[in-house]
Amino acid sequence: MSIERSDVSDWWRTEIIDMAPGIIRFRGHPIEDLIGSVSFPQMIWLMVRGDLPNAEEAALFECALVAAVDHGPQAPSIAASRMAVTCGLPLNSAMASAVNMLGDVHGGAGEQAVELYHMIDEAGGPSYAGEMIDRWQTERTPYVPGFGHRFHKPVDPRAPRLLSLVDEAQKKGVVSGRFAAIGRAIQTELNARKGKPVPMNIDGATAVIYAELGFAPPLARGLFCLSRSVGILAHAWEQMNQGGRNKGPTPPKYRWTYDGPDPI
Amino acid sequence: MSIERSDVSDWWRTEIIDMAPGIIRFRGHPIEDLIGSVSFPQMIWLMVRGDLPNAEEAALFECALVAAVDHGPQAPSIAASRMAVTCGLPLNSAMASAVNMLGDVHGGAGEQAVELYHMIDEAGGPSYAGEMIDRWQTERTPYVPGFGHRFHKPVDPRAPRLLSLVDEAQKKGVVSGRFAAIGRAIQTELNARKGKPVPMNIDGATAVIYAELGFAPPLARGLFCLSRSVGILAHAWEQMNQGGRNKGPTPPKYRWTYDGPDPI
Amino acid sequence: MSIERSDVSDWWRTEIIDMAPGIIRFRGHPIEDLIGSVSFPQMIWLMVRGDLPNAEEAALFECALVAAVDHGPQAPSIAASRMAVTCGLPLNSAMASAVNMLGDVHGGAGEQAVELYHMIDEAGGPSYAGEMIDRWQTERTPYVPGFGHRFHKPVDPRAPRLLSLVDEAQKKGVVSGRFAAIGRAIQTELNARKGKPVPMNIDGATAVIYAELGFAPPLARGLFCLSRSVGILAHAWEQMNQGGRNKGPTPPKYRWTYDGPDPI
Amino acid sequence: MSIERSDVSDWWRTEIIDMAPGIIRFRGHPIEDLIGSVSFPQMIWLMVRGDLPNAEEAALFECALVAAVDHGPQAPSIAASRMAVTCGLPLNSAMASAVNMLGDVHGGAGEQAVELYHMIDEAGGPSYAGEMIDRWQTERTPYVPGFGHRFHKPVDPRAPRLLSLVDEAQKKGVVSGRFAAIGRAIQTELNARKGKPVPMNIDGATAVIYAELGFAPPLARGLFCLSRSVGILAHAWEQMNQGGRNKGPTPPKYRWTYDGPDPI
Repeated sequence: MSIERSDVSDWWRTEIIDMAPGIIRFRGHPIEDLIGSVSFPQMIWLMVRGDLPNAEEAALFECALVAAVDHGPQAPSIAASRMAVTCGLPLNSAMASAVNMLGDVHGGAGEQAVELYHMIDEAGGPSYAGEMIDRWQTERTPYVPGFGHRFHKPVDPRAPRLLSLVDEAQKKGVVSGRFAAIGRAIQTELNARKGKPVPMNIDGATAVIYAELGFAPPLARGLFCLSRSVGILAHAWEQMNQGGRNKGPTPPKYRWTYDGPDPI
Repeated sequence: MSIERSDVSDWWRTEIIDMAPGIIRFRGHPIEDLIGSVSFPQMIWLMVRGDLPNAEEAALFECALVAAVDHGPQAPSIAASRMAVTCGLPLNSAMASAVNMLGDVHGGAGEQAVELYHMIDEAGGPSYAGEMIDRWQTERTPYVPGFGHRFHKPVDPRAPRLLSLVDEAQKKGVVSGRFAAIGRAIQTELNARKGKPVPMNIDGATAVIYAELGFAPPLARGLFCLSRSVGILAHAWEQMNQGGRNKGPTPPKYRWTYDGPDPI
Repeated sequence: MSIERSDVSDWWRTEIIDMAPGIIRFRGHPIEDLIGSVSFPQMIWLMVRGDLPNAEEAALFECALVAAVDHGPQAPSIAASRMAVTCGLPLNSAMASAVNMLGDVHGGAGEQAVELYHMIDEAGGPSYAGEMIDRWQTERTPYVPGFGHRFHKPVDPRAPRLLSLVDEAQKKGVVSGRFAAIGRAIQTELNARKGKPVPMNIDGATAVIYAELGFAPPLARGLFCLSRSVGILAHAWEQMNQGGRNKGPTPPKYRWTYDGPDPI
Repeated sequence: MSIERSDVSDWWRTEIIDMAPGIIRFRGHPIEDLIGSVSFPQMIWLMVRGDLPNAEEAALFECALVAAVDHGPQAPSIAASRMAVTCGLPLNSAMASAVNMLGDVHGGAGEQAVELYHMIDEAGGPSYAGEMIDRWQTERTPYVPGFGHRFHKPVDPRAPRLLSLVDEAQKKGVVSGRFAAIGRAIQTELNARKGKPVPMNIDGATAVIYAELGFAPPLARGLFCLSRSVGILAHAWEQMNQGGRNKGPTPPKYRWTYDGPDPI
């Protein structure tokens, strides 16, 4: 950047963006070359990773972004987004309160699933799925991330569609397909252990794609946040148009059950 | 949805998403039909508006999303995102703290610009730019939203590129071009008033696109939040890799100036 | 502060805190003199205003802080706090998502009530209540801030208790009592207009105290946020102990009503 | 509560608050009995724990709340709070963005310190400090929570003051003093290991108090958030009065250092 380098400017050093008056470059690319030339998913990839994906990598990446945008108002994040606008919050703040909720439990499963896939891959591949699931449950949590759904049984409709697109990409040589194989091995193992289908869910399926494309585990969470922000925005906007003031979680007449001392 | 309708389920009624076990539909479209078929910008449009844009509308929309992803660590939102991860926050929370900052001043200019454009359009078009600017400054704020930049002088490189893409879209009949004309009329008026270039900035330019495509003003803010979330994520992730603990705004040795009573 | 003054340190100038290694002073007071000597409400007052209140001012101030801590899980902020911890958020982030929700509608009524009281005071006092209510409804919103409650009818139990403490403080000369008179004048006017009791609510009652004590209107919101943070923390903590994962707003079996195209 | 119990109301069951029209009870206490009778710290205690502390417990608790309100604009949370208001955010949202930042690194040290103290206590007391520090560093992180300060050397002025108040409370039989002994044992151990003073910091000192008073570890973080919210509010308000728009982390002329490809 066309200013003098100093300890103050070094404090905020970055490889992402360079600027001079009238010039903006992302990862070395002038902004005017990117606008109209790269897709939004390509731009996301460029920003977080530094290089541009080819069209086929970008297409697979885009599928993951499209798949995870929303899961309805019973998701705490979506409910929070809708309540927030009835409290008078503008869209940015409604989105903030909601994205914040994509924590370890709600939004962290994708990150954890990529970690688990990496563990299995580093152990030697799909045949180590059972062993690594055991290790995960011992060292991390009893929840196997990316599998099981309390509502979509026996199948989460997003998972087979995403996996079939990974398969197509594999045939074209876009990805290796080894994380799809790992995901399927976990599926088989869990089905056998439970004696019933334990569906791969949206986190497990997008984690296959993110792992295939070489994203680091925490980015699975970050990219999920980008994707889910779409649904969060859509619901906030719908609620803004529906109106309402201080919308609580249930119709007011239900209130809540008080279980403490000296009830009224 | 395949549950009984009740006052409780009605409390969270929505037109966005429908579900049954194994089935997810957005705006009536099964998720498996959308994945791999629609682009991420088309999915965003579908979610917030209910219909699917055609390919040319989606392409113009995509340009606005690509253009606004980042403006560097001096933007308070980006700085907040970077500081947040050094405080131990995961990416979802870093993004939340940062997106929250896209308030009336930082992220609201696009929304306000669409409002101003609508005012001029409803008044009769570009020739009313001066009159409506006066009204805006009297009734709203002295800041004309979408114009002027403290750094990019005399031109913000994003604006002419975006406007040229609107012009192309107009030639193809994708958009009417009347909001581009309004934006340019404001530009001409402000240049004349100030006696120097007052560059249309990213908010002013993306507002032209959002207005041309028929997005309501608050969505200009919401969509800016989606777009800027990309830069917020990229910077959070870069900072996570750089490391650091409790990164303050300046190198520690500078501290701050104390101007209160009884200085040490 | 014992560092050289520079443009960098001036950028973060403040009158609140001064530091040197081993020394911390707030508003000129060494921290070790404050700890154990001033109450938490006195410390709050010192930090936001710069001076220390006397014991009686602090006592009245404390009543407002105590009164507003919680209004139960149907308040969107409290619901958000509880849902947040089930998404895996630590207490700081649960509090953030929740405090964020104390926006213009949910948490801004106190700020607006102080503004309305000031309008009436500047107009000449209680006898101008009706005229200023009209002006408020014309210029601002139809909602008269600080009055009316959808649940506590005919009386919000917090208001009469707080007003009686203002009366006591007035008798002792701690406050003038003119904002209590204004609040009561609004009450009388609204009751007459509606033909039924329109109870002064927590925002209206704490606004009387904040106005009597000379707090600027936005601080009524800020102090409400401090107070309500207590309930937000208590509910987050209780929920953390109750457990739960991804707690939605209603029991899962109710889901939501879908009102869009092509229902399942 | 005077409504029918149902699965919907049970979904939000709580022991904290009970309501009926005109009646609000916290932990069984009518709100009008609490207002004017209990201090704000007592109210905080009642809300999060369910019982009321006696006056001496409340006094010691109050010292911890007073001590941690602020550490100046170089703290990321405080900087975020100040930047937020210049982005147009109201105080609630500025507080939210800032409190969110009190994560594992910035705000979690108190929680971790209480955990470490408990480990030592359960191992047998102060003489196990060294052994448990080793275990902490092996199993958790190399950072010993609550000790060391990059600025306050050799002493953080808050720690000795707080410890002396714990000692006084111990003499009166208010607390056992065993966590103060543990804190001092860690201090001695770390000084010996490093060959120089490793000052007990604010997190270490307030953790002693929270542990002495029986607060669970996560509440040390939650209570720190309440306390630091005071400084966050004070700085947000001061910045609001100073003005500024889109305040970045450094004076604009410094910008940032770009270290990526193809610099301008």
